[in-house]
Amino acid sequence: MADPRFFEVAGPFSLTTLAEISGAELAGDGERMIADVAPLESAGAEQISFLDNKRYVAAFQASGAGACIVQPALAERAPEGMALLLSDNPYKAYALVAQAFYPEPDVAAAIHESAVIDPSATIGAGTAIGPYAVVGPEVEIGAGCEIGPHVVIEQGVRVGAGTRIGPGASLSHCLIGERCRLHAGVRIGNRGFGFTLDPQGYMDVPQIGRVLVGDNVEVGANSTIDRGAGPDTVIGSGARIDNLIQIGHNVQIGKGCVLVAQSGVAGSSKLGDYVMVGAQGGIAGHLTIGKGAQIAAQSGVMRDVPEGLAVCGAPAIPIKEFFRLVSIWHKQIRAPRKSNE
Amino acid sequence: MADPRFFEVAGPFSLTTLAEISGAELAGDGERMIADVAPLESAGAEQISFLDNKRYVAAFQASGAGACIVQPALAERAPEGMALLLSDNPYKAYALVAQAFYPEPDVAAAIHESAVIDPSATIGAGTAIGPYAVVGPEVEIGAGCEIGPHVVIEQGVRVGAGTRIGPGASLSHCLIGERCRLHAGVRIGNRGFGFTLDPQGYMDVPQIGRVLVGDNVEVGANSTIDRGAGPDTVIGSGARIDNLIQIGHNVQIGKGCVLVAQSGVAGSSKLGDYVMVGAQGGIAGHLTIGKGAQIAAQSGVMRDVPEGLAVCGAPAIPIKEFFRLVSIWHKQIRAPRKSNE
Amino acid sequence: MADPRFFEVAGPFSLTTLAEISGAELAGDGERMIADVAPLESAGAEQISFLDNKRYVAAFQASGAGACIVQPALAERAPEGMALLLSDNPYKAYALVAQAFYPEPDVAAAIHESAVIDPSATIGAGTAIGPYAVVGPEVEIGAGCEIGPHVVIEQGVRVGAGTRIGPGASLSHCLIGERCRLHAGVRIGNRGFGFTLDPQGYMDVPQIGRVLVGDNVEVGANSTIDRGAGPDTVIGSGARIDNLIQIGHNVQIGKGCVLVAQSGVAGSSKLGDYVMVGAQGGIAGHLTIGKGAQIAAQSGVMRDVPEGLAVCGAPAIPIKEFFRLVSIWHKQIRAPRKSNE
Repeated sequence: MADPRFFEVAGPFSLTTLAEISGAELAGDGERMIADVAPLESAGAEQISFLDNKRYVAAFQASGAGACIVQPALAERAPEGMALLLSDNPYKAYALVAQAFYPEPDVAAAIHESAVIDPSATIGAGTAIGPYAVVGPEVEIGAGCEIGPHVVIEQGVRVGAGTRIGPGASLSHCLIGERCRLHAGVRIGNRGFGFTLDPQGYMDVPQIGRVLVGDNVEVGANSTIDRGAGPDTVIGSGARIDNLIQIGHNVQIGKGCVLVAQSGVAGSSKLGDYVMVGAQGGIAGHLTIGKGAQIAAQSGVMRDVPEGLAVCGAPAIPIKEFFRLVSIWHKQIRAPRKSNE
Repeated sequence: MADPRFFEVAGPFSLTTLAEISGAELAGDGERMIADVAPLESAGAEQISFLDNKRYVAAFQASGAGACIVQPALAERAPEGMALLLSDNPYKAYALVAQAFYPEPDVAAAIHESAVIDPSATIGAGTAIGPYAVVGPEVEIGAGCEIGPHVVIEQGVRVGAGTRIGPGASLSHCLIGERCRLHAGVRIGNRGFGFTLDPQGYMDVPQIGRVLVGDNVEVGANSTIDRGAGPDTVIGSGARIDNLIQIGHNVQIGKGCVLVAQSGVAGSSKLGDYVMVGAQGGIAGHLTIGKGAQIAAQSGVMRDVPEGLAVCGAPAIPIKEFFRLVSIWHKQIRAPRKSNE
Repeated sequence: MADPRFFEVAGPFSLTTLAEISGAELAGDGERMIADVAPLESAGAEQISFLDNKRYVAAFQASGAGACIVQPALAERAPEGMALLLSDNPYKAYALVAQAFYPEPDVAAAIHESAVIDPSATIGAGTAIGPYAVVGPEVEIGAGCEIGPHVVIEQGVRVGAGTRIGPGASLSHCLIGERCRLHAGVRIGNRGFGFTLDPQGYMDVPQIGRVLVGDNVEVGANSTIDRGAGPDTVIGSGARIDNLIQIGHNVQIGKGCVLVAQSGVAGSSKLGDYVMVGAQGGIAGHLTIGKGAQIAAQSGVMRDVPEGLAVCGAPAIPIKEFFRLVSIWHKQIRAPRKSNE
């Protein structure tokens, strides 16, 4: 059960209701009432759990959960008395059930008296603005947004309806779409790292582009997205950007891309839709990464990557080649040493 | 001498007193008064220095320090007239001496008038709260804490006695122990990177766990620790977490672990007590790292690591094997090239 | 054209004026008026573009720009009717032209009424201080500075004239030079990661040094620079430090060094002047990196690097050797497998 200091649980729901919510097929007593979600190990008779990974089949077989979401093929392994919700995608079905028990809290549409809001800014209906937020001139904030405490939104920025921004984030030179989630400490729109490498002293190159963020984009805590140098930096709709990530100027991130924590994309590179970048991965500047390509964690990409290809290593190569190389290394390590070595 | 703009020096202390404070054995005139600590190179007759690394023996021999903390074996190399404090652990003895000269300043127990504190929050005796801090409903802050300017502490968070939080940090969904030090810009309790990778569009999985931080934990500037998805994210007592570090949801960090700057631990991995992770190292998700294991800087850990093992490389392998591999690489590089290569 | 929400364009300027501003040689009608800068692909008859990279010659040949800055050798490839500004360094000439169209806005010398400024602080003429900034006792801020909203400047810090500090940055224990640019969320002066690794419990070593930042230094968003342990941490004049970078205690960064995003330098290392560190590169502690050395992206430097040497890899080796090693790897991958492999 989630800590009531932080979360309010809805429900209870009948299994019939949970089957409808999750699109799963019910095997068991539909009138049984379920009070909460819980992990397999700790779930009790009034709780529902899920099995998404074969590693945890033993935990499933030993679980005291009153109900569990599983793939049909694993149904026969359920302990006696456990009701089942059968789904081909148990994690998604669990997500829907958990959303029912733990819906996003409504935004309390209050504007804190300490917020400094320029008179020329427009704020949509039902938007909440936290203590000490600063909203500059000509800013447009849509309806139903949640602007956290200490957020700074500089001149001219547009924030689409339903977007939530965490404490201490700062935005400038950007247009943000609808239903985005920008976490605490995010920095969007700073000037890019643009200067001439002249031996007589570096000279700034004006950074006169913007950051354009689509709809339903998530940007994790303390991540940084620089504005374009002339072209814009673009983040496609549905992209999921984790914590402590760096996006350089002029970068284009396609729709639905997933960038895991501490990864980075250098200036002017273009990622097609649904590219995945693993944790601490890096993509050099001016590259094109094809749609659906997968960049493994810690990889260093120095060349274009074709559509759909998975790469790994530094410099990154196709992942199958990388693991062949690793296996060669392991053999070399285990090879007998020559005398006097 | 430390810059008096920033630091106030206590003392002077006699060498007898410093020997007592540091647990070292005095060799020299115990009534000699020492006014400050200083590096070997710049220390004068009224200052005490230390030698902890054989690299600096020459600096020791040339030093004008009035006194120096050294290992007994090196005492005979001291320049004439230098008093000595003999210790098997000179760095620790120095730490104790330096703490005597530069004690942590007392917390000035003031609550700034601009702090926004919910009436349902409780604040312990002797706690200081800086300008523009925001403390939400039901928050509990212990005695003798120092909450910096612009800190945001959201609903229900608990902060143990004696904990200090730097400027602009934000906390939610967490319980923090006693005597912790959370530096500027730390983000604790954000929702983890939890969603289904459904081709019809990603779907959020509610993140209903917490972050549980033990006692005496340090978290460096701008580091991020996400809350659990269902289980909690746990940071053991005494852990030292440096700057710009990412800790994913459900991670468990054991007691006394040391994570150096820019390293990261992906979701659901478990680190035993006293694990060390070097700078920019990464640990993939769902792994178990045994007690006392050491992960070298920039390593990428893709498998479980047994207790006490030191690993290096990406993918990480035992450090001895890694350096054997590096030596093989160096030979390959130096090997004569075939014709036309 | 830059988005007028965010940028105000100056001009128009005649080509004669732009040639003077940029030090380029005019080939074309000097009285032609130019209204703006624009990329080759989108520029029209009233706009000026530039060609700095041979990759874009085709775009140059097809461009509708009224004028373009190019190297003399490429002049003959210009499309008919395009005026040219001939320069040996087109990117620098472009920077000068773009600065003319988009000059840095003047600082509006206002101190927001919500700023908390200690009476003992001194603020130079023409300095702007944003909402909710906090300026501590004995702080000295020079003339013409711009201190953003929510910036926290702690006791005794000195900020030189003309320095700009972005939203939410926090400074302590540091002296900052003139005309620096510290971006949003920067953390300067936190205590370094200094403690004894004693098995009976770690013990803090007081961190009694400062951070000394020269003139014309840029520090990117959410980067962290710890203060020295006893010696100071030093950032040389003209250094360019990108986003999410970590600089440990006692580090010395030479003049004009360039550190690209997410790189880090561990405690007590010294970088000579004009060292370049690529993105996500790391330098271990206590090393000396010679003047003008170049550390490639993602490299892990474990030894001193001589002046002028370029290194790559982890552990880093001379870049030519690294690419020889990569070519050996590629051959090994492509080698026929032995039977049963």
